[in-house]
Amino acid sequence: MNAPHPLPRIERLAIVGVGLIGGSLAAALRETGVVGTVVGIGRSQATLDEAIGLGLIDHGFTDAAAGVRGADVVVLAMPVGQTGRMLAAIAPGVGPDAVVTDAGSTKTDVVAAARAHFGAHIARFVPAHPIAGDEKSGPSAARANLYRGRNVVTTPVAETEPAAVKLVEAMWRAAGAVIHRMTPQQHDDVFATVSHLPHLLAYALVAQVALDPDHERLFSYAASGFRDFTRIAGSHPEMWRDIALANRDALLNRLDGYTAQVAQLRAALESNDGEALQRTFALARDARSDWLERTGQA
Amino acid sequence: MNAPHPLPRIERLAIVGVGLIGGSLAAALRETGVVGTVVGIGRSQATLDEAIGLGLIDHGFTDAAAGVRGADVVVLAMPVGQTGRMLAAIAPGVGPDAVVTDAGSTKTDVVAAARAHFGAHIARFVPAHPIAGDEKSGPSAARANLYRGRNVVTTPVAETEPAAVKLVEAMWRAAGAVIHRMTPQQHDDVFATVSHLPHLLAYALVAQVALDPDHERLFSYAASGFRDFTRIAGSHPEMWRDIALANRDALLNRLDGYTAQVAQLRAALESNDGEALQRTFALARDARSDWLERTGQA
Repeated sequence: MNAPHPLPRIERLAIVGVGLIGGSLAAALRETGVVGTVVGIGRSQATLDEAIGLGLIDHGFTDAAAGVRGADVVVLAMPVGQTGRMLAAIAPGVGPDAVVTDAGSTKTDVVAAARAHFGAHIARFVPAHPIAGDEKSGPSAARANLYRGRNVVTTPVAETEPAAVKLVEAMWRAAGAVIHRMTPQQHDDVFATVSHLPHLLAYALVAQVALDPDHERLFSYAASGFRDFTRIAGSHPEMWRDIALANRDALLNRLDGYTAQVAQLRAALESNDGEALQRTFALARDARSDWLERTGQA
Repeated sequence: MNAPHPLPRIERLAIVGVGLIGGSLAAALRETGVVGTVVGIGRSQATLDEAIGLGLIDHGFTDAAAGVRGADVVVLAMPVGQTGRMLAAIAPGVGPDAVVTDAGSTKTDVVAAARAHFGAHIARFVPAHPIAGDEKSGPSAARANLYRGRNVVTTPVAETEPAAVKLVEAMWRAAGAVIHRMTPQQHDDVFATVSHLPHLLAYALVAQVALDPDHERLFSYAASGFRDFTRIAGSHPEMWRDIALANRDALLNRLDGYTAQVAQLRAALESNDGEALQRTFALARDARSDWLERTGQA
């Protein structure tokens, strides 16, 4: 491995959306001393004032184009559903040398939006996804150690300038993160499988129970297995609607694969094929236990 | 509510399968002093000797018919897949006044097995399901407080003598449990929905990932949402094969309902119907949060 690219000082950093994700990045970078001025862009002046009060940013702007003016690096950290609109809003203010990156949980759609709204500046747009989160949200949830040891995936495309990718990766490393690079399509397929699909499946099970005439009795016998299986159905409906729509093609593909897997189990059950059921159950049990072992969660 | 039926003393209690479930019942009843002699029936003399050493039982038998001879109450607490075979094995030894009950996690199939193997004695067979468990198993996992405050479902049928039901319910109350009564069909539908179906769905997702050529990359990005969703896929494959087969009809029915719910979400996603997605996600999120609230898990 080469030594990590050192982070050139960022004189002016603009963060669009100073909540948990953007605020934590600002806090981490301020702690390392690699940033000069940090400006926040948001819809609500009250939130911006809160972020200033917390020391996350120096200045706040509700006008996105004005906010990004003069910034070396612009980080989009608002909900992924607003990416296209926000790219269009900042485009007039982004300087020719500025590097723009995002923190959205889907990437193919973000790349398409950047192509649509950024023209030639796509070369200095670096699609990225920090894999970190928290139950809490808003500026007050931000903390400098949120990204310590966490994964950040970058998904540069053919047009992306290598220097821009290196700068964004160095910035995330300075915040404590570990960098992985893949294509936008690989990224979206991976997260469709291990995150977006289980969310949709968990929502579907709770909806099935809730819509049943016998729902009171059903819920009254639900125990810890049901609770854990459906924990992710406690997530924000609007956010997951946006993620599902943003990652529609990969999610549909993985959902169809899942439906086929379930149909195989159904056929085994219907024909009383205990051996086939046990084979699949054991394969899953063993694979999961290996995964827990490998990742130190056993 | 009427006062709970007081428990007449059980002079001789026979427990078939002295593991976590049967051993804990023996321990709880011994602690209350309502039982005289407790005998254990098992396939392995070593396990029976261990149970004697732990003070759970007084005597051990590997011959099932001999073991149940003279018992007032016989409790079947071995894996549910062995119920038919065990009912046939104990039938020659069960006295005319003895009450027999079980602890299996499915009930329609247990009733069918009792009808097939017990003849007229079905009147004194009380199908029951204690909703309790633990990660550990075997006699050493048994503990007197396992059923304290836990639910036990009894599912008497038309032939069941009311006095036999009252005796079994009083026995479980003496062990600390709360009794619920329903039909075998209601029971099996409830547990197909809130337990057996999520197990099958969790096994299916892990199998889908494990069987993918890209499984290493996929697992390496799986995080806490995936871990919780699939926790129940860490369960014993043989046990869940048996439960799935034992509850085949109810499980197939609920699986089809689930598949229809997922198909609706798929259609909404494919047609970019964000409103429909959000409506179902929000319905599920709210129903789950109400359930957690009601059950003091919020």
